[in-house]
Amino acid sequence: MPNKKEIIVGIDLGGTSIKALAVDGRNKILAMGKKKTELGHKPKVLIKEIAKLVEDTAKEAGVKIKGVVAVSIGAPGAIDVRRGVVTEAPNLHWKNVPLASELRLLLGTPVMVDNDVNVGVMGEHALGAGERVDNLVGIFVGTGIGGGIILGGKLFEGANGWAGEVGHTVIMVDGPMCGCGRRGCAEALASRTAIERDIRGAIEAGAKSAVIEIMEERGKDRITSSVLQAALAKNDPVVKQVMKRAELYLGILVGNIVNTLDPQRVIIGGGIASRLGENFVGPIRAAAYEQFLHAGSAKLTKVMAGSLGDDAGALGAVVLARKRMRL
Amino acid sequence: MPNKKEIIVGIDLGGTSIKALAVDGRNKILAMGKKKTELGHKPKVLIKEIAKLVEDTAKEAGVKIKGVVAVSIGAPGAIDVRRGVVTEAPNLHWKNVPLASELRLLLGTPVMVDNDVNVGVMGEHALGAGERVDNLVGIFVGTGIGGGIILGGKLFEGANGWAGEVGHTVIMVDGPMCGCGRRGCAEALASRTAIERDIRGAIEAGAKSAVIEIMEERGKDRITSSVLQAALAKNDPVVKQVMKRAELYLGILVGNIVNTLDPQRVIIGGGIASRLGENFVGPIRAAAYEQFLHAGSAKLTKVMAGSLGDDAGALGAVVLARKRMRL
Repeated sequence: MPNKKEIIVGIDLGGTSIKALAVDGRNKILAMGKKKTELGHKPKVLIKEIAKLVEDTAKEAGVKIKGVVAVSIGAPGAIDVRRGVVTEAPNLHWKNVPLASELRLLLGTPVMVDNDVNVGVMGEHALGAGERVDNLVGIFVGTGIGGGIILGGKLFEGANGWAGEVGHTVIMVDGPMCGCGRRGCAEALASRTAIERDIRGAIEAGAKSAVIEIMEERGKDRITSSVLQAALAKNDPVVKQVMKRAELYLGILVGNIVNTLDPQRVIIGGGIASRLGENFVGPIRAAAYEQFLHAGSAKLTKVMAGSLGDDAGALGAVVLARKRMRL
Repeated sequence: MPNKKEIIVGIDLGGTSIKALAVDGRNKILAMGKKKTELGHKPKVLIKEIAKLVEDTAKEAGVKIKGVVAVSIGAPGAIDVRRGVVTEAPNLHWKNVPLASELRLLLGTPVMVDNDVNVGVMGEHALGAGERVDNLVGIFVGTGIGGGIILGGKLFEGANGWAGEVGHTVIMVDGPMCGCGRRGCAEALASRTAIERDIRGAIEAGAKSAVIEIMEERGKDRITSSVLQAALAKNDPVVKQVMKRAELYLGILVGNIVNTLDPQRVIIGGGIASRLGENFVGPIRAAAYEQFLHAGSAKLTKVMAGSLGDDAGALGAVVLARKRMRL
């Protein structure tokens, strides 16, 4: 049984916002902190902001920073896990940033870093929709599509630490251009970015939609998950059509994963799934079932929404810290 | 060190032919037997033929059937490995055939059965192109496309024994119909069957090709690997074009596998690869490299032809037997 007093601060470092959770040894959330990710400065400036957020969140949880046994961060991009360096994070405009050592200098606590999707999947596995399941795949649908694989109860990293990039598997040869420079990746077809592109395309082509109005009402310049939700509540035909297609693509992706890895569970996480829940995951599941080669998979392989919502990343970072430090 | 005298007969049971290898404890092939797969009778008739082939091959190796410590079979289709039952093998028109127990009754030796592609990958892993590599994926391109995954040095079977069906991952949404009833699977785009369909389609549409002539010369009614080889030697434009496209699709499949699993090696096996070798695998590798998300994969992940050729299945069955019986 972990010591209840062993408080860890988990950080979900995203391109839009930074979330911190102070969690006790029994995984109870004691305090939450959040701030916008201010880009456009040197990495050091953002790292200072993260340090301040950690201190504030610890304070709110009733401990000084010296009472925090570890700070653990999920960061978007390629991470050198051993050295705690963010090798490349396009969303942060970071390259070779020694995040762990810089933050350790500022805070004096042990700091560890891993990929945000990997820690999100670890969070869902240990504390969320993956509890008590040893083999699962997590797919996080957001700005991009990330994935993480748990085999035998452990994060499966592959030979070089690059496993799990299911968002960059091609499901449509010669399909639309992906952010990675290739064509027809799942990410280019069904990420929030692809959904936004298709909705805007339909509107520009003259289709009637309430989306622009909803964005203006809410002061958003992007088609966020909340905008999608509001448009679906209004039965918006363009959004309905585009979402239906994205759900089909995601179902095909889930089918490919199940036919390749035969996991016990596939968990759909990320912003859209957090917000729309079963309305999003239900159609993905139905489309996936059509793809399963073995009829039995439909009975034996669960396709479900993540249960930690926006907390998956920060909680997963806490799980990671506990594993690494054997707490 | 295994006992040199522990002779095992490995069988590769295919829809076209049955191959038997009698192998000693140091994996030396002592004798080979082969016969056509006669379908159209009850399963028992074919099982009797297999028994006779085992006896003949053992005899040629200089041992009586009592001197054979195990008979091990790779069979095409879904296998209940524990009970040695071929649950479903469309190529043999078999359903729920208790192959192991029937053959054990006839021969008096221990008999084990596993999926042909799984044993083929085990063979390449233990004795062929996968030697000394712990994480690899094998793709066997033939009538269909099968796959097998080795992780941590062991066959990875998934939660229900269904892992590795990479031939039935969709790479072209709404693509051509696959034998599995779905659309756009890799198998529907790049198996020998798909290649044959596309060559015949082009010829029917009026394209000039020497393929029909080559088939007649050789008395073949199908476009086999040897027909493909002969046509390529003649620089046949239709075959060149269709093969180029199939190699591109296979490269995309390899890319999807590498981006998902980050293995050390991908081995391309099966009839076409055995026959064409690097002429087939080279273009697949080049197309795959274009797909790798991590630039480093091109340096670190080898894409290569299997080295056991037609022996992969029967040798892999021997490897399987030795693992199961701890010989």
